[in-house]
Amino acid sequence: MSKPKFRRLALIGIGLIGSSIALAARREGLADEIVISTRSEHTLRRAEELNLGDRYCLDAADAVAGADLVILCVPVGASEAIAKWIAPALAPGAIISDVGSTKSSVVRQMQPHLPANVHFIPGHPIAGTEESGPDAGFPELFRNRWCILTPVEGTDEDALARLSGFWEALGSMVEVMDHEHHDLVLAIVSHVPHIIAYNIVGTADDLEAVTKSEVIKYSASGFRDFTRIAASDPTMWRDVCLHNKDAILEMLSRFSEDLAALQRAIRWSDGAALFELFSRTRDIRRSIIEAGQDTAVPNFGRDTKDAAEASDAN
Amino acid sequence: MSKPKFRRLALIGIGLIGSSIALAARREGLADEIVISTRSEHTLRRAEELNLGDRYCLDAADAVAGADLVILCVPVGASEAIAKWIAPALAPGAIISDVGSTKSSVVRQMQPHLPANVHFIPGHPIAGTEESGPDAGFPELFRNRWCILTPVEGTDEDALARLSGFWEALGSMVEVMDHEHHDLVLAIVSHVPHIIAYNIVGTADDLEAVTKSEVIKYSASGFRDFTRIAASDPTMWRDVCLHNKDAILEMLSRFSEDLAALQRAIRWSDGAALFELFSRTRDIRRSIIEAGQDTAVPNFGRDTKDAAEASDAN
Repeated sequence: MSKPKFRRLALIGIGLIGSSIALAARREGLADEIVISTRSEHTLRRAEELNLGDRYCLDAADAVAGADLVILCVPVGASEAIAKWIAPALAPGAIISDVGSTKSSVVRQMQPHLPANVHFIPGHPIAGTEESGPDAGFPELFRNRWCILTPVEGTDEDALARLSGFWEALGSMVEVMDHEHHDLVLAIVSHVPHIIAYNIVGTADDLEAVTKSEVIKYSASGFRDFTRIAASDPTMWRDVCLHNKDAILEMLSRFSEDLAALQRAIRWSDGAALFELFSRTRDIRRSIIEAGQDTAVPNFGRDTKDAAEASDAN
Repeated sequence: MSKPKFRRLALIGIGLIGSSIALAARREGLADEIVISTRSEHTLRRAEELNLGDRYCLDAADAVAGADLVILCVPVGASEAIAKWIAPALAPGAIISDVGSTKSSVVRQMQPHLPANVHFIPGHPIAGTEESGPDAGFPELFRNRWCILTPVEGTDEDALARLSGFWEALGSMVEVMDHEHHDLVLAIVSHVPHIIAYNIVGTADDLEAVTKSEVIKYSASGFRDFTRIAASDPTMWRDVCLHNKDAILEMLSRFSEDLAALQRAIRWSDGAALFELFSRTRDIRRSIIEAGQDTAVPNFGRDTKDAAEASDAN
């Protein structure tokens, strides 16, 4: 479809995702006016210094007034409070969306408070980095990444098409699914990986027999990869854990069961079982690279690049 | 110290590490002659096509004859067989080393078979990528990475200094520690991270409710990072698990205990405990970057770079 155009885009929350949307939406000319709101005065001032929008409001209700597209870009635990806050100020016909990593909870938190004359379409761009805050945003963040929309029953087709077009204009591919399925899929591809990364970094931090300086020195042997994910925003990830509890606990149980079996194979020196698992996981990597969702360069390109630069410098 | 010089360097095994040593040793002029040996005719031919050495032998005993530096670059499970094979052919005074990821087992496997008139000094460069085979090597692999040497009791100081100088000339920083401590440190910084990465990829692969295509499509949300590590060489990692069993099982127990506590915090909505863990893990990331052991660029630089290239192409 052709690029949609909005009169006024209101972004509630201006961290990594909010600031990336602001930059990309302006570059693509998707809104006549971009209004930014966040409850922290300090962050709002920073957003203004970075020239991320056209108008800046501490009051979210002021920001959404007259907006035909409102996107919440906040930790999912804040969704209900914001829905209550902005509901009376929403313009009839406006599209209300979000970018939260859990979707059933967002529907439960927001839907009861929103007026019947707006289009509520939850969303989740599958994109990010380990950084956070308004300085972390960049307009290419969504390019070649999926954005999942989870419309509720009776969603207006035109509104859905306009919101899909918005994300496509930001460079994303759009997929529609129901919110329960979203939460199950994301539990395994995102939430549990983050939880086990935080966990292994915590375990290493607690050891008595291995010093922290050893963990850091020898981290290139595998550990460092986990620390990137474990450097993600703590508030966001606390909220994800609290708001997708059932799916996360289910996937964690499966992970732990499988790990117990693997532990047993190690204890009993079952080399065949280890080799079987360690071989079949290679295919998934290959498919992810073929799907354009990761780089094929070894070590994500960091060492070859760093080394080449170091070498050039000599 | 000044760059050491060897008359003949014999490399037994020519995968990622062996081929990287060959390329770097030649570039730095560390040996008059580089002899390469591997039991696979196909791989040996490939090494020759890549011009990795000066001479190529299927028989490891032929390769080590007259060599003053011999480095085994094979999965650790092959150490004993190779020690038996090459022992009768070793030149008096030669340094015999290896690059295996476990060290106590290598000492147990090799030491009993080696003659008293050679210098046996096990080693482990903390460097690698997810690729394997002779095509995967590149000479910068060891630059700015640590190499751990684990000399046994009574090791000759001169031989240790010469081997340290060799690794320093390849770009590494050298650390000396005993082999038991090495195995404990590597269990937490390398072995357990690999095992849990293989495990989560296996868990995701086994789900009924989430399709493989969904796992691949949405992998940029965290999962893809784990698939890189889980694409590592299955034979090498099977051997690591079988040959550092005690330390790995100890660290896996701690990991599982911590994960159970985290699971409980999620179940009982203990947001404070989650926030505490998710916050303290950030510091370790920062220290790793400050120590030059990982890049500071978000997402290891892959998305910003890919996106910038995609953008340039438009």
